[in-house]
Amino acid sequence: MHALKVTRAEDFPEWYQAVVREADLAELSPTRGCMIIKPWGYGIWERVQGELDRRIKASGHDNYYFPLLIPLSFIAKEAEHVEGFAKEMAVVTHHRLMAQDGSLKPDPEAELAEPLIIRPTSETIIGDAFSRWIKSYRDLPLKLNQWANIVRWEMRTRMFLRTAEFLWQEGHTAHADEAGAMEETLFILDMYKSFAEDFLAMPVIEGEKPENERFPGAVSTFSIEAMMQDGKALQAGTSHYLGTHFAEAQSIRYQDKEGAMALAHTTSWGVSTRLIGGVIMTHGDDDGLRTPSAIAPRQIVIVPMLRGKPEDAELRTYCDTLAGELGAQSAFGTSVRAFVDTKDARPADKRWNWVRRGAPIICEIGPRDAANWQVTFIKRNALREGEKVKSHTIPRADFVVRASALLGAAQSELFAQAKARLDGNVRNGFSTFDDLVRYFGENNDDEFKGWARVHWAKPHGAALEEVSERLKKLKLTIRNAPRAQPSTFGACIFTGAPAVEEILIARAY
Amino acid sequence: MHALKVTRAEDFPEWYQAVVREADLAELSPTRGCMIIKPWGYGIWERVQGELDRRIKASGHDNYYFPLLIPLSFIAKEAEHVEGFAKEMAVVTHHRLMAQDGSLKPDPEAELAEPLIIRPTSETIIGDAFSRWIKSYRDLPLKLNQWANIVRWEMRTRMFLRTAEFLWQEGHTAHADEAGAMEETLFILDMYKSFAEDFLAMPVIEGEKPENERFPGAVSTFSIEAMMQDGKALQAGTSHYLGTHFAEAQSIRYQDKEGAMALAHTTSWGVSTRLIGGVIMTHGDDDGLRTPSAIAPRQIVIVPMLRGKPEDAELRTYCDTLAGELGAQSAFGTSVRAFVDTKDARPADKRWNWVRRGAPIICEIGPRDAANWQVTFIKRNALREGEKVKSHTIPRADFVVRASALLGAAQSELFAQAKARLDGNVRNGFSTFDDLVRYFGENNDDEFKGWARVHWAKPHGAALEEVSERLKKLKLTIRNAPRAQPSTFGACIFTGAPAVEEILIARAY
Repeated sequence: MHALKVTRAEDFPEWYQAVVREADLAELSPTRGCMIIKPWGYGIWERVQGELDRRIKASGHDNYYFPLLIPLSFIAKEAEHVEGFAKEMAVVTHHRLMAQDGSLKPDPEAELAEPLIIRPTSETIIGDAFSRWIKSYRDLPLKLNQWANIVRWEMRTRMFLRTAEFLWQEGHTAHADEAGAMEETLFILDMYKSFAEDFLAMPVIEGEKPENERFPGAVSTFSIEAMMQDGKALQAGTSHYLGTHFAEAQSIRYQDKEGAMALAHTTSWGVSTRLIGGVIMTHGDDDGLRTPSAIAPRQIVIVPMLRGKPEDAELRTYCDTLAGELGAQSAFGTSVRAFVDTKDARPADKRWNWVRRGAPIICEIGPRDAANWQVTFIKRNALREGEKVKSHTIPRADFVVRASALLGAAQSELFAQAKARLDGNVRNGFSTFDDLVRYFGENNDDEFKGWARVHWAKPHGAALEEVSERLKKLKLTIRNAPRAQPSTFGACIFTGAPAVEEILIARAY
Repeated sequence: MHALKVTRAEDFPEWYQAVVREADLAELSPTRGCMIIKPWGYGIWERVQGELDRRIKASGHDNYYFPLLIPLSFIAKEAEHVEGFAKEMAVVTHHRLMAQDGSLKPDPEAELAEPLIIRPTSETIIGDAFSRWIKSYRDLPLKLNQWANIVRWEMRTRMFLRTAEFLWQEGHTAHADEAGAMEETLFILDMYKSFAEDFLAMPVIEGEKPENERFPGAVSTFSIEAMMQDGKALQAGTSHYLGTHFAEAQSIRYQDKEGAMALAHTTSWGVSTRLIGGVIMTHGDDDGLRTPSAIAPRQIVIVPMLRGKPEDAELRTYCDTLAGELGAQSAFGTSVRAFVDTKDARPADKRWNWVRRGAPIICEIGPRDAANWQVTFIKRNALREGEKVKSHTIPRADFVVRASALLGAAQSELFAQAKARLDGNVRNGFSTFDDLVRYFGENNDDEFKGWARVHWAKPHGAALEEVSERLKKLKLTIRNAPRAQPSTFGACIFTGAPAVEEILIARAY
C-alpha cells in the first residue's frame, strides 16, 4: 500500500496529477489553463528563484522590470518571432467595463486604438529599450534579467509543464560581436546545467536544438534536456543566440572603437515553473514527491506524538528545542529549515502528509524518545525497506550534528538515482531508421523506452522536415545535439549518408 | 550648484521626475502609463520585498500565486467592488492574432466566450478559492499573501506613484469572526508602520480612512500616511477589514464548533512600488536621492581614482581588499553591501553618479589614501557643509570597524529629519472651517503647508460628501482618523456640533 492511489507503473500521467494534488503543490484555477500555486509548490519556486538569482547576479547581470503589456506593433517587428508567437497571445482590446442588462461587458467607447499583448516573452520590448540605451561599444555588453509572469494561450495544458500563465526568469543581453554573444549563450547553458544538477538533483544533457526547433527569431537555440521516469524528455531550460535579427528589427546599433556603426548581437534565455514539473517526474515515487533537500521549503519536519494529555507540554518543548538546535545548523549555505507540526490532526495523518510532500527528513517524536533523549526519523528518499516504512532512532545530539550531512546525503542519493537512470537509458547502436522503428514501435508509448543517441547528416529545410515527419509517426522528436560529441561519425540513420553529428531522439513533454 | 538641474523649491514635481531619471531608478516605457524599473530602483524593491516577506512569513502567512487573469463574471460578484474597479480594468477579449494587409490584428475567430480581466486586485479570485478550501472552523484562520503585478487603467500616471501596471504584495485572510479579522487588520497596519519607519526611515501616521475613501467592498479601511517634503500626504499602505461582504458574494462558509454554518470574515492588505515614490519624496534632496542604508542596493561604494597608469593596479588591489573587509562586516542583519566602481569613466563623474543615486557612503580612494592606509569618504545624507561637499578621512582599520555604525547612523539621521518634519507640521488649533480656508488658501497649493489635525462629528453619507466637496475646493482631502485619539473633543469644524474624532486633512498624492 502506497500513499498515492495510483502508481507510476499503472498510469504515469494520472500519477503526476496525483502528486501535484496530494503534495499540495498546486491546483487548477477557474481561469482556463492557469493554476494556483500553493505554499509547498511556491516555496520550492522561491528556493529556485533565490539560488538562480544569486548565480545570475554573480555573473554580472542586473535585474530590471519591463511592462507586462506590449504594444501590438512591437510584436510585429521581427517576422519569424510573429510567426512563432502570434497564434497564442492574450490580446487586451479594452480598458473599461460597462454595465448592461445587469451584467458587465467591455465598454465599446473604451476600445484601445492599438491593442496590447500580454508578454509571451519580452525580446521586443526589451530590444526597444536596448536601442535607446546602447550608443557606444562602452555600453556593451549589456546584461540583464527579469523575473516575470508570461502568458501563452496553450490549447492543452498540464500543471507546471504547460500552463497559459507561468512564472519564469528571462535574461536578455547585447554584445559587440558574435563571439561575445555566443560565449554568453553557452555560459548560461552551463549555468542552467549546473543549477539543475547541483540544486534540483536533476541530471541533464546540454546541446543545440535542430533548426526547426529554434526559438522564433534565433540563430541557434540550446537546451538542457532531462529524462523523466517514464523515459520521456523534458526541455528544462533554453539559451538562444539571436544573432543580429532583433538588432536589425529594432535598430540596436552602437559606435565601435573605430567610430563605425555596427549591429549588436543579442541573446535571451530562460527557465520557468516548468522546472517543478521536472522535479516531480524525476524524483517522485508512489508515495508522493521526494523533494531535494536544497529546494525543500521545510527540510526537517518534526511531528510530536501528541495525545491531548498534560504530558504533551513536555513533548512539545522537547520538539521545539530540537527544532531550534537544528535551525542553528547549516546546510546548502543557509540555516537548516526545521519545522514542528503542531496542527490539530492525528500524528499518523501528519506523517503521511509530509511523506506525500516529500520533506527530506520526517521525525516522529513520542514520549519515549523524549525520555531517552533520542530522535526517531524516516528518510523520505529511502522511505521503505521492502513494503515497510523504515525508521531510524539515534541519540538526539548525534541527530543534530548529523542533520546537515543527512540532508546532503538525501540530495546526493536523489541525484545518483536520477543520474543512473539517465546514463543507463540513452541507447546507442541504432544503425538505421528501421532499428529505431523496431525499438520504439508504434503503439506502446506508455512503456519506458529511454532515449536514442544516433548519427545524422544534419539535414536542413525540407529534408529536416521529412525526418521530423518520420519521427513523428513514432511519436519521437529530436531533443538536441549534445555538446559532447565524438570525433568521428558513422552513417546517417535517416539517409545512409556520412553523418556529421550525434543527436538525441526521444518522446517528450 | 547642485547635482540636479531643478531644485525642490523651484518645482517639486519636476524635481521628482529629475530624481527618478538622474538616480536611474526607472523610466517611462513605450507602453502607455507603464514604467521600466531599472537596477537601482528594482534593487530597492528587492530589499523591500525581502524584509516585508520575512515579516509576513514570521507572522504566520504563506505565499501563494493566483492567476493574473480573472474571469469577468468573478469581478461582477461583489457589487461595490465592481463599482470601484470596473472603470479602470484591462480587458482581454481575444487569444490569437491574425495577419491582414501586412499588419496584425485580433483574430475574430479567437474571441473569448467570456472576457478576462487583468487583476486590479485579487479578492474575487482568492475568495473563490477560500470558498473551496474553507470547510470547518479548523481551517481558520487562513492567512496568505502573494507578490504580484497589478494593472489599473489610470488616466494620469506618475512614475512609481500611479502607474497602469505596478508591483505589490496583497495579503488575504479569512477568520471565524469579526474580532479575529479586525485583530489581523490592525496587526498588519502596525507591521506596515514599523516596516516603513524602521526600514524605509519614513515616519507615518496610522489611522482609519473615512467611509467614502474605503476600499470598494470593505467595512473599514486603514492606512499609513507619510508626509512628503512638499507637505502633501502619501498613502503608503492600506489594510482592510472586509466584514462578510466577500464571504456573502462568494459563499465563504464554515462549520463552527457547534456544527452550524457561518460566514467567514475576511481581510486584505497591500503595499506596492509606490513606496519607492514615498522614499524619494521623503529623503531626496537637490543632489538626488538619499537612499536609506537598509534598502540601498549598494551601501558603500568605493571609487578608485584611477589614472590609466601602472600604479592603478596597486590602487585597485587596495580598494578590492577594502571592499572584501567591508563585506565581512554586518549591518541590518546582513553582510555590508560594498562595491568597487571600476567603470571606464572619470572618477568625478562616478562620484556624482553615486551621489545622485544616493549610495549612503561613497569612498574616493587615491594613491595618497592607499599609501597612508586611510579612507576618504562622504556621507550622502549629510553631503555638504554650506555649499561645499564635505569629505572625511580616517584610518582604514577604523573605517572598516565603524562601517556598520556609519550605515546605521545614516539611516537614523534620515529618519530623524523626516520625523521632525512630520511632527512639526501637523497643525492643531483649527476651530472652524474658515480657519482652514485662511490657512490653506485657495490658490497656492505649491507652498509647503503640512497637515491639519481637526475635530469632526464624523458625518455619514450625503453629509460626508458635502464635507469632501468643501475640502476639495481647497484641494484638500481627509487622510485618516489617527489611531491615537484624545479622550475629549471640541466642536466639529464643519458643523459646530460636538466632535467625536480627530482627523488628518491634507493635500495628497
